[in-house]
Amino acid sequence: MPPDLIAALDIGGTKIAGALVDGGGKLVARARRATPAQEDGPTVLRAVTAVLRELAAGEHWSRAAAVGIGSAGPVDASTGTVSPVNIPGWRGFPLVEGVRETTGALPVTLVGDGVAMAAAEHWQGAARGRTNALCMVVSTGVGGGLVLDGRLHPGPTGNAGHIGHISVDLDGDPCPCGGRGCVERIASGPHIARRALAAGWRPGPDGDASAAAVAASARAGDPVAAASFARAAQALAAGIAATANLVEIEVAVVGGGVAGAGEVLFGPLRRALADYATLSFVRDLTVLPATMGGDAGLIGAAAAAAQQARLPGFATG
Amino acid sequence: MPPDLIAALDIGGTKIAGALVDGGGKLVARARRATPAQEDGPTVLRAVTAVLRELAAGEHWSRAAAVGIGSAGPVDASTGTVSPVNIPGWRGFPLVEGVRETTGALPVTLVGDGVAMAAAEHWQGAARGRTNALCMVVSTGVGGGLVLDGRLHPGPTGNAGHIGHISVDLDGDPCPCGGRGCVERIASGPHIARRALAAGWRPGPDGDASAAAVAASARAGDPVAAASFARAAQALAAGIAATANLVEIEVAVVGGGVAGAGEVLFGPLRRALADYATLSFVRDLTVLPATMGGDAGLIGAAAAAAQQARLPGFATG
Repeated sequence: MPPDLIAALDIGGTKIAGALVDGGGKLVARARRATPAQEDGPTVLRAVTAVLRELAAGEHWSRAAAVGIGSAGPVDASTGTVSPVNIPGWRGFPLVEGVRETTGALPVTLVGDGVAMAAAEHWQGAARGRTNALCMVVSTGVGGGLVLDGRLHPGPTGNAGHIGHISVDLDGDPCPCGGRGCVERIASGPHIARRALAAGWRPGPDGDASAAAVAASARAGDPVAAASFARAAQALAAGIAATANLVEIEVAVVGGGVAGAGEVLFGPLRRALADYATLSFVRDLTVLPATMGGDAGLIGAAAAAAQQARLPGFATG
Repeated sequence: MPPDLIAALDIGGTKIAGALVDGGGKLVARARRATPAQEDGPTVLRAVTAVLRELAAGEHWSRAAAVGIGSAGPVDASTGTVSPVNIPGWRGFPLVEGVRETTGALPVTLVGDGVAMAAAEHWQGAARGRTNALCMVVSTGVGGGLVLDGRLHPGPTGNAGHIGHISVDLDGDPCPCGGRGCVERIASGPHIARRALAAGWRPGPDGDASAAAVAASARAGDPVAAASFARAAQALAAGIAATANLVEIEVAVVGGGVAGAGEVLFGPLRRALADYATLSFVRDLTVLPATMGGDAGLIGAAAAAAQQARLPGFATG
């Protein structure tokens, strides 16, 4: 059998997931380890190696044609290194070199996790068939990726589409990135919860003070909870409209835990988008919920590798 | 002689310029009319036709291989129509069809004026040899264009790089576009002058209250004048940093009348960029003054047409 699978890795601050992905986007093998996020760099790499070895020990490994890595960012595809905010032991860490020690001669593609998610949504999800799209994850952080001219656009370092750290409030609150008024600083789950609490919202008897709990209150009619989501929606709308003005996207796909709030987020987001996306060539922009779910990172890492290695079947453009 | 020239048009609210451009970017023929900007649509088109007929009557016209149009926006390359803010008689006006009545079977390319300027700077100016760049004009308005992966990126409608109407202040002052806190609303020449006047700056004996006069005061040490430029620089920096986060540019080229202020603008712009472009993959971004001057619109329209028609010699990527 000729090589027809891609070995995919999805590396985050909590878990390291691996899979062999076929040309239909099906995961024919899986492996997974917890991320030893507070350990030193080589220890974190050993967890990656363990995932790869488990895949390599399986019956399908000989069919692997390439390796795709989607990692928490920032990444640097030009040097094969990563510096994930939530993995302090990796700073400029040579992840691609470390992976090659296990995968040998297979070509390796590295992209940020937002780019991987965009690849997955474009291949099989809400952005399927679209020529120009922004796909974003709104969760503990805010990330994203771009499809331009029908193809994934990772950028030279694999970080393009990094909407979470564009400033939509140039005099706004300082962001840990060093900037001010970043989209993430206003729209992430923790900031939705923080803002609701500061404005007087209180969790229920279970003590759950997450953005999901704020969403439940908003659905039940709490105006303070709804206002915190509306503010997040406004920041997302300004960021999405900026992206549309800059690169002419036809659709913005929004996933991640905060998107799970449904209409509590998407209703005000569509209204706010009409306020910021005003020019003729961006006015028809549509916002859609993501559809790919928990395996998006793996499937997207495979799609990004397939595009780079020009493998047929993995049709992302 | 085989066709080796491009007929270029640069259409603005004040003048309609035309030229035949050769593969070295030289203008081998020129024509020009004032824009009858307050007249009806067909009257404005007649001025365009007059420019084209003057070129067509010259000895070099038989060498024309294609037509490139850079127009004040918004434009719609997908339908061949334009709706320039400063030419109210043209709303969804079929400019490409109107040009074809004179130019016959030649292929016609339409882009926004910011995209044309970017094409010129990439072909022969400050962005020459760069793989990923934003080029912008800061003048009465603020416009721009993008080079991605070594090629001009006009977007489906020819408006990509429209940095003037991204919001960097989501609660900011209303902009005539319908948005709020747009880069143009803070950084254009008229707004630099307005803000200086509101803060107590006064013009000299000649009564000149332009941004250029504010720049002269700033150079002479007036802190109010300098502060108005610094605020413009801050908005430009937030917009440039947003662009870098979204599409990974290595250089931002800034031209237009306001850029003529020199270090009064570029000094605070470089400092503010360090505040907003903080992530590893955007930190090395450079800001450079544009170098193409008054013919950038014509040369860039030719370059955009050459890229679309895949003409050799006009090397924009």
